Amino acid sequence: MNVTAQGRTQHFRTVTFDRTQNTVRLVEQRLLPHEFKIVATKNFRETAAAITDMIVRGAGAIGATAAYGLAQGALAFRGRELKKFSAHIETVYQVLENARPTAVDPVNAMNDVRHEMEHGETVTEQQSLALAAAEEFAREDVRHCEAIGRHGAKLIRNGMKILTHCNAGWLAFVDVGTATAPMYAAQAQGKKFHVFCDETRPRSQGATLTAWELAQQKISHQIIADNAAGHLMQRGEIDLVIVGSDRTLGRTGEVANKIGTYTKAVLAARHKIPFYVAIPFSTIDWNLKRGFDIPIEERSESEVLGVWGIIGNSKFKIQNSKLSQRAYVRVANPTSDARNPGFDVTPAELITGIITPAGIFKPQELWKRRSELGFVVKKTARHQKSPQN
Amino acid sequence: MNVTAQGRTQHFRTVTFDRTQNTVRLVEQRLLPHEFKIVATKNFRETAAAITDMIVRGAGAIGATAAYGLAQGALAFRGRELKKFSAHIETVYQVLENARPTAVDPVNAMNDVRHEMEHGETVTEQQSLALAAAEEFAREDVRHCEAIGRHGAKLIRNGMKILTHCNAGWLAFVDVGTATAPMYAAQAQGKKFHVFCDETRPRSQGATLTAWELAQQKISHQIIADNAAGHLMQRGEIDLVIVGSDRTLGRTGEVANKIGTYTKAVLAARHKIPFYVAIPFSTIDWNLKRGFDIPIEERSESEVLGVWGIIGNSKFKIQNSKLSQRAYVRVANPTSDARNPGFDVTPAELITGIITPAGIFKPQELWKRRSELGFVVKKTARHQKSPQN
Repeated sequence: MNVTAQGRTQHFRTVTFDRTQNTVRLVEQRLLPHEFKIVATKNFRETAAAITDMIVRGAGAIGATAAYGLAQGALAFRGRELKKFSAHIETVYQVLENARPTAVDPVNAMNDVRHEMEHGETVTEQQSLALAAAEEFAREDVRHCEAIGRHGAKLIRNGMKILTHCNAGWLAFVDVGTATAPMYAAQAQGKKFHVFCDETRPRSQGATLTAWELAQQKISHQIIADNAAGHLMQRGEIDLVIVGSDRTLGRTGEVANKIGTYTKAVLAARHKIPFYVAIPFSTIDWNLKRGFDIPIEERSESEVLGVWGIIGNSKFKIQNSKLSQRAYVRVANPTSDARNPGFDVTPAELITGIITPAGIFKPQELWKRRSELGFVVKKTARHQKSPQN
Repeated sequence: MNVTAQGRTQHFRTVTFDRTQNTVRLVEQRLLPHEFKIVATKNFRETAAAITDMIVRGAGAIGATAAYGLAQGALAFRGRELKKFSAHIETVYQVLENARPTAVDPVNAMNDVRHEMEHGETVTEQQSLALAAAEEFAREDVRHCEAIGRHGAKLIRNGMKILTHCNAGWLAFVDVGTATAPMYAAQAQGKKFHVFCDETRPRSQGATLTAWELAQQKISHQIIADNAAGHLMQRGEIDLVIVGSDRTLGRTGEVANKIGTYTKAVLAARHKIPFYVAIPFSTIDWNLKRGFDIPIEERSESEVLGVWGIIGNSKFKIQNSKLSQRAYVRVANPTSDARNPGFDVTPAELITGIITPAGIFKPQELWKRRSELGFVVKKTARHQKSPQN
């Protein structure tokens, strides 16, 4: 999407590949929203480290990064011996797989790349097939998000006020995003609307990443405390809710997503406000039978007990926040502990529709339509998907 | 309630009066939870400034502070001329009234004191009646909170997990508090239970003040993000919700309280978890006919866009946080704005019961029982109550 840096507006993707330098180029997400910077990883180990260190995060984005990382490792190989090359590729694969062991997207993406490489008979052929497959993985991620945008944009009418939670934006994918995709598409169609971004405590992804994305795209928006959505709904100030998903159960239509999503779904149902979940195919879990069985990660207490920000002045808007002033502040009583469940599960009955690249479906319809979404069955069956930031 | 400072546990009230020094002694609430300190205001102007500067906050606490402030002003008068004394008292009243112009509690409290003073025929008599009335106002605040505790403690059973929102604790009153009163009473009866404190963004009163109170009282508790309550309810981890109220409509049973209260009530109703509101008589508004007509204050954007805390290290628990390290950090995207409604309104249908000093009633019963709670009619009719922190 567009980013305005140093007064110049340019189109960027979260992850791209530079063939001439054999580098993976990534938006340095840890610096956002305070600084926009592209980093280039020089070899597959640096690429793996970028995944580990959360320079890149989000399902689609880390999938593409791993795919490019595998191609990068392949292209760095010097020699013609296929056996040595295969051993080298195995090492690259392992290093990238271990970059974030609980994530399924890097593994699925790399399996795609390796599968394509098998069609090559020489090292050189396999090298160029690896790069082609990685590029195709990234392109497909963008195509799917764009399709979500096309379908979802139909839900957005002029003058609407839309609530979103956490960040399921382009920063979490290669481009466009999922929950944000309908907004970007509607904007391109000339529709005017307003977005409320839930702050999304404890990690504040709504206040930081989603608000930054919308500001860059010049979409009208305001940040609200997670506590405020109920009041706004009560006063008729929210017309539509669109969120993303970390895991969607294909058999039941239940959605695991960032903690607080369930609360917004309960409120929306009470106020008869449509509640949509935008998902790429890759988050559908066709195996699990009950949302209750999704393991809910307990994250660090420090996230709840404090927050990261830029040391500043509450009286002024910060136009040029300096990253050197970034600090963790402890907010809570020093002698108290916290509970910090990272995700929650929203039952199908509270979800108006699931926006997929193949169209918008009732959550209960996913299983019936599994043949339409069928190719995903093979893909996700390889690894158990686990929710992740 | 008890506070352990420098290794010594002692009983404190939020507001007390020192007759020998003619000072009002206040817990310096702006320093909490990081430092516990008592400040003494030397004259009625300093007492008014303490209200303005939020050294003291909370309905009951600022009421008692104003009552003591008026007595303090009366006692400082030198002379025997009643006319001059009355003019002086009028000045004291005005200064204290203007300390927080939207608050009704200081005015009601001072009217009580002035009413008692009328029975005195000399300056000296009026001076001692003023002090006696102020002391009685504070004692009544404590008695009412203790009565709330007695009634509410019956709701708490061994092993229960209780959710509370914001701070309706002893710091907001002279002692004991309202939402916390049943917890303190149940603890005194030897019951064991666990409290989840909503962080209560944007001002974090749950994570700071309520958590501090519970820690001082050695009540088992954990802080949670406002987003987490829905998930905990879904997994059967919350048995009871008790919150306070800024204004309760006597005619409808609707409750205006800190933003996010409504959300918790909606979630509790879905999960059939009892949802109670603890209130002193003074928050009942017998005039207003619809909760929708309660004006909802829009507070500063900076509260949502950032947070105050102690600059620290997320890896360690802070045992001795230094107040000199207190800072505001900007969390949100620097170029985004915020909406910040301070309160919301919970309809009677979502409230299991209202815990008053006179017993626990269905919210719809308040009007029917208005003669029981009757003396309040006169009191609150004098001034329109407006929600306040």
